[in-house]
Amino acid sequence: MENKKQSFVTIEWRDQAVVMIDQRLLPHQEKYNIYREVPEVAEAIKTMVIRGAPAIGVAAGFGVALGAHNARGDAAAVVEQTKQACDLLAAARPTAVNLFWAIERMRARLAQVATAPVQQIKEALLAEAQTICDEDLGLCHRIGEQALDLIPQSATLLTHCNAGGLATAGHGTALGVVRSAVQAGKRIKVIADETRPFLQGARLTAWELARDGIDVTVIADVAAASLIAGGKIDLVVVGTDRVAANGDVANKIGTYSVALAARAHNVPFYVAAPWSTIDLNTATGAAIPIEDRPAEEVSHVLGQRIIPEGVPVLNPAFDITPAELVTALITDRGVVRAPYIEGIKALAG
Amino acid sequence: MENKKQSFVTIEWRDQAVVMIDQRLLPHQEKYNIYREVPEVAEAIKTMVIRGAPAIGVAAGFGVALGAHNARGDAAAVVEQTKQACDLLAAARPTAVNLFWAIERMRARLAQVATAPVQQIKEALLAEAQTICDEDLGLCHRIGEQALDLIPQSATLLTHCNAGGLATAGHGTALGVVRSAVQAGKRIKVIADETRPFLQGARLTAWELARDGIDVTVIADVAAASLIAGGKIDLVVVGTDRVAANGDVANKIGTYSVALAARAHNVPFYVAAPWSTIDLNTATGAAIPIEDRPAEEVSHVLGQRIIPEGVPVLNPAFDITPAELVTALITDRGVVRAPYIEGIKALAG
Repeated sequence: MENKKQSFVTIEWRDQAVVMIDQRLLPHQEKYNIYREVPEVAEAIKTMVIRGAPAIGVAAGFGVALGAHNARGDAAAVVEQTKQACDLLAAARPTAVNLFWAIERMRARLAQVATAPVQQIKEALLAEAQTICDEDLGLCHRIGEQALDLIPQSATLLTHCNAGGLATAGHGTALGVVRSAVQAGKRIKVIADETRPFLQGARLTAWELARDGIDVTVIADVAAASLIAGGKIDLVVVGTDRVAANGDVANKIGTYSVALAARAHNVPFYVAAPWSTIDLNTATGAAIPIEDRPAEEVSHVLGQRIIPEGVPVLNPAFDITPAELVTALITDRGVVRAPYIEGIKALAG
Repeated sequence: MENKKQSFVTIEWRDQAVVMIDQRLLPHQEKYNIYREVPEVAEAIKTMVIRGAPAIGVAAGFGVALGAHNARGDAAAVVEQTKQACDLLAAARPTAVNLFWAIERMRARLAQVATAPVQQIKEALLAEAQTICDEDLGLCHRIGEQALDLIPQSATLLTHCNAGGLATAGHGTALGVVRSAVQAGKRIKVIADETRPFLQGARLTAWELARDGIDVTVIADVAAASLIAGGKIDLVVVGTDRVAANGDVANKIGTYSVALAARAHNVPFYVAAPWSTIDLNTATGAAIPIEDRPAEEVSHVLGQRIIPEGVPVLNPAFDITPAELVTALITDRGVVRAPYIEGIKALAG
């Protein structure tokens, strides 16, 4: 890879607004949306202008900062309006723990500065959001470094959904593992599941890897097990929206199928995630709320209907991969293997 | 169900031509194509105007009959031109054994009448093709009857791809099991995998079941394992393009993933097929040729590109489900369970 930085910006604070690349329009159009109101940011999260657990956390942080920035009145009023921003953003999506983690962090900072002059409250919250963003980028690089020992010098790696630069402040988690390996001189070929219904793999993973000059091939989700059975895949690396305290992994619907196939053929199945994705308050995967998304994501592709009128649809957005199918969790704090309850506790310190 | 017959025609001989419903246009448009030349029939098979292993066999039979019908000259010339039709049709698709089975049957009939008057050759071949078609409908009904003991009085059944009336001369194999159960008064809900890339489930299974008043819900393929894990599926029934002598099953890409999930959660996984789909000359699934289909089926949906320009695609059309994951084969000759080599031999007897 010629340039070590990824070649696009996922989210940033610019000119007193939250700016995001509109991921619904990729790969056809590279458009940056400018949000000046908190409800717009919440709607952007809900409608998946931005998605990916870490990126949702960063967006929530900037969203709260925007709420403070726009607030009017004295300190108490600003605090109150900022709390309302927190509540609104927390309702945007249910599964990714990073959303709640980022909002809690913003609430804690708000509590620290609640009696300060108004301008200082606003600056403190913007600084905190920027820190969350900067830290996320750093975490992704550390995840990539932690993974280096696990990745062969030459490998074909399968990934599901997009746990890339587009799903984080940059670099990516699963694709951070890829980028760090490529930057370390390894020869990595990526097979990207297209990831119906929202096509994060076909649209986003393919776009961001091709844009950064990394070898990527797209398959329909249904082909993953066949490639794994045929010995074409050396390892699987995916991201996650939430890891339970026992190591169960919530990730984009379809991840569980890939994990079952990997296990059936003894292919390592790795989950890459910043530490904030591990939810010690959730005992097992069964306790993770699974979001049902609108039927239109399945019944339509790019606005065109693919199923007959009147036929119903089920559209769960995530599934649970039991810890027993996970070869290792790759976190910024280190690599965790089974038994996960103990391993996670140890890293939690 | 009010009417016991399915409410549409998949393929028939009419007015000296082969008539097929154009399955590429469903569910949006119900259009019947009229083919008067053999290369058109071969192209229709290749481009999936008609698909489904038994229906491909029926189409090949009528295609050969069309070749004889259109042939000019004396008996020897008609035989020669009919053989050329056989060769052309045999090259249309590689995986479904029914294609070759039907063509061999037509060749055998041709050999029997090779020295007869020209008109008699033509009539004999058309009659043979019509018999293949009529028999296929009968086989599907017998498959449905064989399955009745396996289907609970009330059940949610998951299927992949379309092994329906559209994939056969009528009634269907996997969906024949559904239709026969519904006609026997059972309460069956069908969950249809959308079946990327060609969307046979979303477009065809949903269309034909809804049209016949049978309860059907569509999911993205990626959601099947999650529903199975959640206890939402009582049994899986799929069709097949070829069964090896050891019971390994070639079917639409993605079938293997469903079978792995079914096994992981002790959900019965049944394969419904006419006896002609069992290929005693193929020892194991590893010997079944797997067709690679055009990249455009993955890179485009309904003509719209979904992946970035220049990014390559892999598009295997079928996968192999090992016999050990198959709870039973449901054939018109009876239900076969493991050990399959012995069970298949016994029914072949």
